[in-house]
Amino acid sequence: MTAKGEGQNLEYIFHPRSIAVVGASAEPRKQGHVYLELLRDFGFSGKVYAVNPKLKQILGFTCYPSLKDIPKPVDYVICCIPAPSTPQLISECVAKRVKVVHLFTGRFGETGNEEGARLEREIVRIAQKGGVRLIGPNCMGIYYPKAGLAFKFNSPKEGGDLGFLSQSGNNAVALCYRGSLRGLRFSKVISYGNACDLNESDFLEYFAHDPETRIIAAYIEGVKDGPRFVRALKEAAQAKPVIVLKGGRTEAGTRAVAAHTGALAGSKTIWDTLFNQAGVVQVDTLEEMADMILAFKFLTPPKGRNVGVIGAGGGGSVQAADDCERAGLSVLQYPPEIRDEFKRLAPDIWDWIGNPIDVSIFGGEVAATYEITRLVATHSETDALIVGASDEWFLDRAQGKALFQGTIQAFIKMGKECQKPMAVVLGSAGVPESWRWKAVIQAERTFFEAGFPVFPTLSRAAKAVSRLIEHWERLLASASIEDKRVYSTL
Amino acid sequence: MTAKGEGQNLEYIFHPRSIAVVGASAEPRKQGHVYLELLRDFGFSGKVYAVNPKLKQILGFTCYPSLKDIPKPVDYVICCIPAPSTPQLISECVAKRVKVVHLFTGRFGETGNEEGARLEREIVRIAQKGGVRLIGPNCMGIYYPKAGLAFKFNSPKEGGDLGFLSQSGNNAVALCYRGSLRGLRFSKVISYGNACDLNESDFLEYFAHDPETRIIAAYIEGVKDGPRFVRALKEAAQAKPVIVLKGGRTEAGTRAVAAHTGALAGSKTIWDTLFNQAGVVQVDTLEEMADMILAFKFLTPPKGRNVGVIGAGGGGSVQAADDCERAGLSVLQYPPEIRDEFKRLAPDIWDWIGNPIDVSIFGGEVAATYEITRLVATHSETDALIVGASDEWFLDRAQGKALFQGTIQAFIKMGKECQKPMAVVLGSAGVPESWRWKAVIQAERTFFEAGFPVFPTLSRAAKAVSRLIEHWERLLASASIEDKRVYSTL
Repeated sequence: MTAKGEGQNLEYIFHPRSIAVVGASAEPRKQGHVYLELLRDFGFSGKVYAVNPKLKQILGFTCYPSLKDIPKPVDYVICCIPAPSTPQLISECVAKRVKVVHLFTGRFGETGNEEGARLEREIVRIAQKGGVRLIGPNCMGIYYPKAGLAFKFNSPKEGGDLGFLSQSGNNAVALCYRGSLRGLRFSKVISYGNACDLNESDFLEYFAHDPETRIIAAYIEGVKDGPRFVRALKEAAQAKPVIVLKGGRTEAGTRAVAAHTGALAGSKTIWDTLFNQAGVVQVDTLEEMADMILAFKFLTPPKGRNVGVIGAGGGGSVQAADDCERAGLSVLQYPPEIRDEFKRLAPDIWDWIGNPIDVSIFGGEVAATYEITRLVATHSETDALIVGASDEWFLDRAQGKALFQGTIQAFIKMGKECQKPMAVVLGSAGVPESWRWKAVIQAERTFFEAGFPVFPTLSRAAKAVSRLIEHWERLLASASIEDKRVYSTL
Repeated sequence: MTAKGEGQNLEYIFHPRSIAVVGASAEPRKQGHVYLELLRDFGFSGKVYAVNPKLKQILGFTCYPSLKDIPKPVDYVICCIPAPSTPQLISECVAKRVKVVHLFTGRFGETGNEEGARLEREIVRIAQKGGVRLIGPNCMGIYYPKAGLAFKFNSPKEGGDLGFLSQSGNNAVALCYRGSLRGLRFSKVISYGNACDLNESDFLEYFAHDPETRIIAAYIEGVKDGPRFVRALKEAAQAKPVIVLKGGRTEAGTRAVAAHTGALAGSKTIWDTLFNQAGVVQVDTLEEMADMILAFKFLTPPKGRNVGVIGAGGGGSVQAADDCERAGLSVLQYPPEIRDEFKRLAPDIWDWIGNPIDVSIFGGEVAATYEITRLVATHSETDALIVGASDEWFLDRAQGKALFQGTIQAFIKMGKECQKPMAVVLGSAGVPESWRWKAVIQAERTFFEAGFPVFPTLSRAAKAVSRLIEHWERLLASASIEDKRVYSTL
């Protein structure tokens, strides 16, 4: 359908000079209204046209009865009209020399009925013959904050270096919002639905070469062209960290995929093998995807598996040790020379200091916490740090907020000084007191703005750090392996 | 050390007529101040005395120079003085016929040094000779909201039916606070630290017979008397659901246990075998513990593994299906008769309705959502329901809050009507907008107050439901198995 490597030349789809929203609506709940509002609010600098035969103006944009009535050229069309009207629209796009059409419209191949499938084949035929590219149908389209393109209000206007391709609009929206709260910022996001024309391989190839993209994440339900996808995936994973969530790896999941985007999900074993060979980090949930992206974004590759764990509370330390070792990390015992230093700095409690360090023994003394933990952080055998800034412990004490702030700053200072990968654990903000919620939200922001990833539990932090190490170890050790038998079945 | 079954007679430790805080402090950050404040704020109805030779009054409580200067009898002592002074205090307790001493004080056996271990042996010797029982040392003590006993301000004043014994004070505090936000309410919580006298077996035996306790949770690092513990655990698990988090199941965790409460953690295999044979639900983290308690608290045993999943978004449905099947649940396909009903109720989109149901296809129509999902809920083959009330989906729409509220009420109505176990999934409240945070917090409360457990992700809900089924299946199938070889090594 598309030639090898064509995805690399997709730059133009992210830089339209003009956009028309066809099926524009005056009703705020309709997506044909939302897209116009987004183009305005995210500061798209090109021309914007609304198309609706019944209206004169929407949100200050002139409304035209049809695409062909727009007096100027249109590069990009966002299609929000019902499926049966789309072949006519695509023909008009061809006539108007539109470059790309994003079809928000659904009810095509994913319905499983013959009429939907026929419609989908028809728009592809018209578009390909006429030189128009299609994104979708049944998807949210493009979020490219740098150019003012967006599909949801609560995504950040600020851009970043994460490229995300998602067959599901829901997952695209969820990662953009929830991920952004954890510090993720996006170069480009493409929600591409049924992938009737432009597909996962195009976007993977594009991201592999996109200088704005440093990390690639993908939510994929099925692929259109197995061999090309395998090549694209390997190429991408050699260039940048690639994190993939494969939807439909169980029987019920496969059925749900068919109903969702009409894709064939394929066998779990084949996918697992492919991801493993390609050096892709596979995850099971969106939360785990965000964890791994954060690890790649903020952490330099640890030199080894020895972690220094700094946490709060005795039971918390036991749990932290168990979590780390279960995740495959090593919680090292400190050697005599460092214990002598503990003794010098904290003569009353030095024998209480181990790994994990139970910071509650410092009684909230920020200076002591810093001095001791710094020793651990800078120690030559410490490869990485996991720091639990437990809000419960700090916030419930008198002067709790000041103590919390002081400790956060001490940890950030320590993390920067030691120049080692440091993961932070913060309790969830799901609390009923607004001061506590604000403190946790603010702490998370403080940490990620200082360049440290925050995880909601120690076990998730430990797992992410361990998988990060695994990834870099494998990348160093790997020779290219070709298993054509596996790939050919994709 | 203690006779078999003695734990059953511990009722008196929860009903002191008078409490003395020894080592009372005027400094709000010190626990010797906090305990007094808690007794006042939680409404303890007995007499409260402060003991500190340098002060006359703290928080309105008369301060005595020493325990023996208190003119009236004292049933219960909370000890906050340094470890070296405790043998003298315990002797005074014997003289004053105190029944129980809770030692918040640490720096005993858990230090690993001979002096600490000697001190611990000494207080045990004095107490046992004099007929005084000890809780601790190195612990938070008792939280029994019904009687006004507490160890932390942010625990609910309202009581419940969960009994929790925790060797770690930190974990006790964390479950009481974080768990309470998810709807957990406690009969009694005992943080018991080094367990030099009263120990895990005493409390397990007590909870097994306590009419106020319907579910038992335990955080255990090591046990004092293996055979007795095995008996107590089996007895408890036969009487009530028992959920255990065993701290120190890895090498580093075992070291951390030794440093924390001085206990011997034992081998992971032995513990796994024991828990399995006793019919105990073992968990790896506190979050998982809360998940399982919620499942036991709110869900009736499902009749089978067929779940009806009601969620939002196409990608979310695929993920939900994968999560459920990975957790061992079955996402059933609806038979023709129910699909005919879909067709009648939603002629435009009936063929889009599957399991999971993607509720986004109803476009936010609460009535349609209710009518369709009710069909699924009441269907004879549906054994349990997992409902995703995705806040992102609802809240970002125009009139989002009203829509969200309406859908929550529709789900609650449906869950009550169908009388099947229903788990709810709600996105985390870790969001920067206060209106959104409040909506999520309030939604969680609305659901648990209506009797439905809320989980932060679908995969956690699915896992909890699956383990709940596993537990009841095993309980039904189990004959009592005695493996003395395993138990004797504990």
